[in-house]
Amino acid sequence: MHKLVLLRHGESTWNLENRFTGWTDVPLTATGVAQAQAAGRLLKAEGFDFDLAHTSLLSRAIWTLWHCLDGLERTWLPIRHDWRLNERHYGALQGLNKIDMAKQYGDEQVLVWRRSYDTPPPPLSADDVRCERGDRRYAGIDVPLTECLKDTVARVIPYWEQEVAPQIKAGRRVLIAAHGNSLRALVKHLDGIADDEIVGLNIPNGIPLVYELDADLKPIKRYYLGDQEAIAAAAAKVANQGKA
Amino acid sequence: MHKLVLLRHGESTWNLENRFTGWTDVPLTATGVAQAQAAGRLLKAEGFDFDLAHTSLLSRAIWTLWHCLDGLERTWLPIRHDWRLNERHYGALQGLNKIDMAKQYGDEQVLVWRRSYDTPPPPLSADDVRCERGDRRYAGIDVPLTECLKDTVARVIPYWEQEVAPQIKAGRRVLIAAHGNSLRALVKHLDGIADDEIVGLNIPNGIPLVYELDADLKPIKRYYLGDQEAIAAAAAKVANQGKA
Repeated sequence: MHKLVLLRHGESTWNLENRFTGWTDVPLTATGVAQAQAAGRLLKAEGFDFDLAHTSLLSRAIWTLWHCLDGLERTWLPIRHDWRLNERHYGALQGLNKIDMAKQYGDEQVLVWRRSYDTPPPPLSADDVRCERGDRRYAGIDVPLTECLKDTVARVIPYWEQEVAPQIKAGRRVLIAAHGNSLRALVKHLDGIADDEIVGLNIPNGIPLVYELDADLKPIKRYYLGDQEAIAAAAAKVANQGKA
Repeated sequence: MHKLVLLRHGESTWNLENRFTGWTDVPLTATGVAQAQAAGRLLKAEGFDFDLAHTSLLSRAIWTLWHCLDGLERTWLPIRHDWRLNERHYGALQGLNKIDMAKQYGDEQVLVWRRSYDTPPPPLSADDVRCERGDRRYAGIDVPLTECLKDTVARVIPYWEQEVAPQIKAGRRVLIAAHGNSLRALVKHLDGIADDEIVGLNIPNGIPLVYELDADLKPIKRYYLGDQEAIAAAAAKVANQGKA
């Protein structure tokens, strides 16, 4: 039996401001830092240990991983960064306030943008100052201008299959610090959630999500680590972010 | 022409308490964090950029690197951790106060322990609680019980030759965040400093040391980045740490 731990980044400045973030590289808030440190300490207290970690190219996930590893007393573990674990690209919505958008376009449209499986938000223009093309961290990568969750799945799952799954099968204990939607993509795959049911899945910030997997990496068990009521409240808060 | 940047970790709790540290895994102080962040911002302001970084398995160097990369806006760069960049092992002196030792054994003996090229401090006993054998980060490594600088050179230089030098020759821009003595070992090698002259070399905490290297990695130029008077004062402070 293998264990895998997924960790959505702690609260970011734009989580706090309720803005669509996507690939915009915003920092953690002090709360987000504390969440990440607490996640590491909780994992350590519960007897978890790891051999390596994966994260995205976005600072909020990287800092979450760093603080979590510090809480685990495992700052020295190898870390693999990959753009395929980045948050879903939010297109032209990046930087805009979720409530403002709900007031302007309605709750339903915002829910489609946030949670539809195959309808992407309007794309960024390639000459928009917000466009990440030209950022050297993405050199050689076909940087998207927008993504629906299906697009995110199409990059996260190959990364999982090619890079992560073989490590777990080889007995290595893996921690992945990433984002709400790159982790939803992975959870959808692991749990076999249908395209039209993934809309209801919300992953709270900074709370370790543990998978117990069989030899074929099929989930045997799946649970959040910590106070279950607080976790349910945090997930509900995520679900309600786009309502006017 | 290649550029290489070396960075000794920022002030640690045991730097502040003037204790021999070696492989003991002590954290940075708030000053140390600020030094590391400032080093990153200074490197960025001076136009430096990097393709990858190397550090040790000790948290004070790792956190220094993380804060420096944050200051550089390069949190996503690949990082290679290796025990061969660890601080010199300080044997049975680890945890003891430098002034106390100078009062007990005399300034001269402490200078020998601190700076002699080939006389190691008394070894830790393998069953001493301070001994790092059994720490899983060093699994498979013949953990020393004490080291003189010559011993440190004997592990740092192979790491340099095998791992770092080929990367630099291939055009990659390298940042190394490490320790007073692992960096003294490297500087001795790069600058061809004689065994009996290295005693006088002191590297201050948290200040980027820039090497400009030719195609064969011979130094053309070497300088600390920042306020030169403050840097000289910081190096003198390091030199005087073991005097009663």
